[in-house]
Amino acid sequence: MTAAFTDLPGLRETLREFARERDWQPFHTPKNLAMAMIVEAAELVEHFQWLTPEQSLTLAPDKLLDVRDEVADTLIYLVELADVLGIDPIAAARDKIAKNAVKYPAPKRGP
Amino acid sequence: MTAAFTDLPGLRETLREFARERDWQPFHTPKNLAMAMIVEAAELVEHFQWLTPEQSLTLAPDKLLDVRDEVADTLIYLVELADVLGIDPIAAARDKIAKNAVKYPAPKRGP
Amino acid sequence: MTAAFTDLPGLRETLREFARERDWQPFHTPKNLAMAMIVEAAELVEHFQWLTPEQSLTLAPDKLLDVRDEVADTLIYLVELADVLGIDPIAAARDKIAKNAVKYPAPKRGP
Amino acid sequence: MTAAFTDLPGLRETLREFARERDWQPFHTPKNLAMAMIVEAAELVEHFQWLTPEQSLTLAPDKLLDVRDEVADTLIYLVELADVLGIDPIAAARDKIAKNAVKYPAPKRGP
Repeated sequence: MTAAFTDLPGLRETLREFARERDWQPFHTPKNLAMAMIVEAAELVEHFQWLTPEQSLTLAPDKLLDVRDEVADTLIYLVELADVLGIDPIAAARDKIAKNAVKYPAPKRGP
Repeated sequence: MTAAFTDLPGLRETLREFARERDWQPFHTPKNLAMAMIVEAAELVEHFQWLTPEQSLTLAPDKLLDVRDEVADTLIYLVELADVLGIDPIAAARDKIAKNAVKYPAPKRGP
Repeated sequence: MTAAFTDLPGLRETLREFARERDWQPFHTPKNLAMAMIVEAAELVEHFQWLTPEQSLTLAPDKLLDVRDEVADTLIYLVELADVLGIDPIAAARDKIAKNAVKYPAPKRGP
Repeated sequence: MTAAFTDLPGLRETLREFARERDWQPFHTPKNLAMAMIVEAAELVEHFQWLTPEQSLTLAPDKLLDVRDEVADTLIYLVELADVLGIDPIAAARDKIAKNAVKYPAPKRGP
């Protein structure tokens, strides 16, 4: 399998092919994918649980590589979850940020 | 604020500006962002907790909109977390999928 | 319903009766209860996500009451999950602490 | 260390001693303990992510032992979190169930 994608739609297509080749689609219900995603999110959290907020900003290189893998895993399941639900994650984020801009207006800055 | 992004780098830039305008950067340590991300991931999970896997595939339209917002929130914090750590989520996913392809080889198909 | 329990077995019995009276047992599979539990755990996490570790030690009284409710919710689902699996949480904790004592031996103290 | 406790207060005392012997108290802020707890909760979730709800009811014996350890870990951090916040988990659950009984009244049964 080539995995030369450079954006979210490419990642989505690669993941579809990956699941199809392994007959994983029956397991990829939204319920199951949501569970898998939060498990990966927790593996990300685990790296930071005993660190101070300051320490969490300066990870050792090997730890940063582990964290990078967990970021990837969380993103992978999030993209698969969005895909089976027919959700475009970028469009969803765009709409959510528009809502957030109303909910949390930016303070006016001085002259 | 214009939020006309169409890809992950655009989302990342929009989020940087959003945080800067609100002076939220001091709160955006990896530790805090990982916590915020898993909280949003759990709000996604919550929608599916009492559904059967089959039911989770056919959400009512209003519920699907709620789920879409939670997908957005999880993605937003994941992108912010990756950003403060200097991680490119797409490249991370590419490398992880390459590892997974070795770990879980696709079965050979018949002729 | 009287809910005058004072220990975990009493809580377990109360929760059994609570579920039975509402015909909730069919929903109380381990898979579903594990999801419900992590959702409550995340509501607990949410209270602390933007606080410093120090601030998390000195919550305002009203916030502490909210946190107390989330501790309760997490414990409730954990006890229900253990119950449907036939696990005694106290015995499980006892065995796990014995393992941890071997894994993380206490440092010797001075004379 | 003897760990012959048989109830939650005994577990709490054992955990206090365990942390004290290892000088872990400075790490045991509510923020950190909430993170550690959700990480353990996710390890519990992980066992169920690809199972059907029905399969989750009939775990193989060795898998059940793994799940038992994760129940223990989640309970341990939940008890430690409650302890540093001065929360009595049983009293909290009692109060929460009383609230739930009002929020979700049991249906009347026929004669």
